[in-house]
Amino acid sequence: MASLLDGKKVSSELREELKRIIEDVKKDHPSFKPGLAIVQVGERADSTVYVNTKCKSANEIGMEARHVKLPKSVSQQEVLSALDQLNKDENIHGIIVQLPLDCTEQIDADLCTNSVLPEKDVDGLHDINAGRLARGQLGNCFIPCTPRGCMKLIDKSGIDIKGKHAVVIGRSKIVGSPMANLLTWSHATVTICHSKTQNLPDIVKQADILVVACGQLQLVKGEWIKEGAVVIDCGINVVKDETKKSGKRLVGDVDFEEAKKKASWITPVPGGVGPMTVGMLLQNTVENAKRRLEKSIKNGNM
Amino acid sequence: MASLLDGKKVSSELREELKRIIEDVKKDHPSFKPGLAIVQVGERADSTVYVNTKCKSANEIGMEARHVKLPKSVSQQEVLSALDQLNKDENIHGIIVQLPLDCTEQIDADLCTNSVLPEKDVDGLHDINAGRLARGQLGNCFIPCTPRGCMKLIDKSGIDIKGKHAVVIGRSKIVGSPMANLLTWSHATVTICHSKTQNLPDIVKQADILVVACGQLQLVKGEWIKEGAVVIDCGINVVKDETKKSGKRLVGDVDFEEAKKKASWITPVPGGVGPMTVGMLLQNTVENAKRRLEKSIKNGNM
Repeated sequence: MASLLDGKKVSSELREELKRIIEDVKKDHPSFKPGLAIVQVGERADSTVYVNTKCKSANEIGMEARHVKLPKSVSQQEVLSALDQLNKDENIHGIIVQLPLDCTEQIDADLCTNSVLPEKDVDGLHDINAGRLARGQLGNCFIPCTPRGCMKLIDKSGIDIKGKHAVVIGRSKIVGSPMANLLTWSHATVTICHSKTQNLPDIVKQADILVVACGQLQLVKGEWIKEGAVVIDCGINVVKDETKKSGKRLVGDVDFEEAKKKASWITPVPGGVGPMTVGMLLQNTVENAKRRLEKSIKNGNM
Repeated sequence: MASLLDGKKVSSELREELKRIIEDVKKDHPSFKPGLAIVQVGERADSTVYVNTKCKSANEIGMEARHVKLPKSVSQQEVLSALDQLNKDENIHGIIVQLPLDCTEQIDADLCTNSVLPEKDVDGLHDINAGRLARGQLGNCFIPCTPRGCMKLIDKSGIDIKGKHAVVIGRSKIVGSPMANLLTWSHATVTICHSKTQNLPDIVKQADILVVACGQLQLVKGEWIKEGAVVIDCGINVVKDETKKSGKRLVGDVDFEEAKKKASWITPVPGGVGPMTVGMLLQNTVENAKRRLEKSIKNGNM
């Protein structure tokens, strides 16, 4: 029976650690305050919930969180201007554009994420950061938050990634693709599967490490899992459940009940990968604020 | 017995086609002339041979080739200035930095390749182009020449890539990594292997398409090859051969004689992938010159 990779607990510990780091730095540099800006276009209810969670978590660890709300009717140029201002703002160390955009004008979301300064791109969505990650420059780029969270959970399992066979299902720019890069440069042999993959069960059966991020309810069956595998489930599928007060519950891309009989470690849904993402966003921002402070000290500005 | 994927022939046909394309465009736009600049630092004999081959091939199809020779003692700033000038030069549609740099001063090669304007980066080495390729924006980036050449050879084999299992051995930024991206976004299921991979024969045996780019003499044995596989060998290893006038010959990363008994298609070494690289460099440059012309017409400048 698999042990649980408890993302809620790991994320909570991480946020405590980040809070301590900020307090420690403040001892010598009282004005130190990492700043995160979140640009939201429109008023999708789910986006607002996410943004509020991010801001609340940021505040809890002693970070400034700036929620930049732009109306649904905003033009592309106005979004780019807002980003430009944040790029120039010395108090802001991380900028994210909450996706999807909820707008009435035509706005190129890729152009927006690429208009964040690469040095403040804590979501790791800028082409430059993606290119560096793809080529293995892990110490010289921002790593997207969900895959970075998955790596931390894999690390918690204690498995030595080097030389292991990792299988990633999904190739999205936010999860699957960067996840495959991270595993490759952590020296796993990596197989990337997706909707066009023909013999998925046979490939999944080879996985010492399995990361599933395809958004398909319980696609991965228990019998596909290799004995002792580490299973990371990024899926968040909403299903009806009349027994719940909300009338619904969250289910992953893996058949959890069956898979846990074969895996050595597995993430639950909810409470696995989900809580890690915000933690990693905070970590990317704190690390960047520290780097900027160190650079500033080195340059004799403090 | 495998059929040969004759890179020499495919590359020669490609260069003929590019020559015709340039002549066709010239009919309406007599001043049209794609321009390629190659920046060489120092005087490595092998680099000079490569650069001369590139220039000669470019000239043969009606392209301007500018060989910018910088002395061994050049400073980083001088290299960056030379690149800046070429970036601004309207007659230059492609810029490459011949690697490795042969210099006495400390020069950051990554900084040089990243100082080429992404819109002129016909080697596809800029972080921005790498990021776009990694995320599947194949129509919006420059694809590195060797992997693009491999794709053309795979295409010549007639195999339908979609859903096939492709195995790439090697994860370099010039060949392995972009090759894995190209195959993934051509909808193959892709496994990336490298020096830390533990069960290489078992993985290679699954490959419908095998691309080897690890620089290890005949690493891949014939018995590893799946019956009917398409085998692309990017290896160029020099071995002593007293029967040759030069005293040496080129051998790939695959045991060609044994592998051809099982593959359906295979590239020879030499004469397989090698000749494709220059062809693709020319294609990247011609396509870019045409794009720039079309843009210029659209903007009413011609």
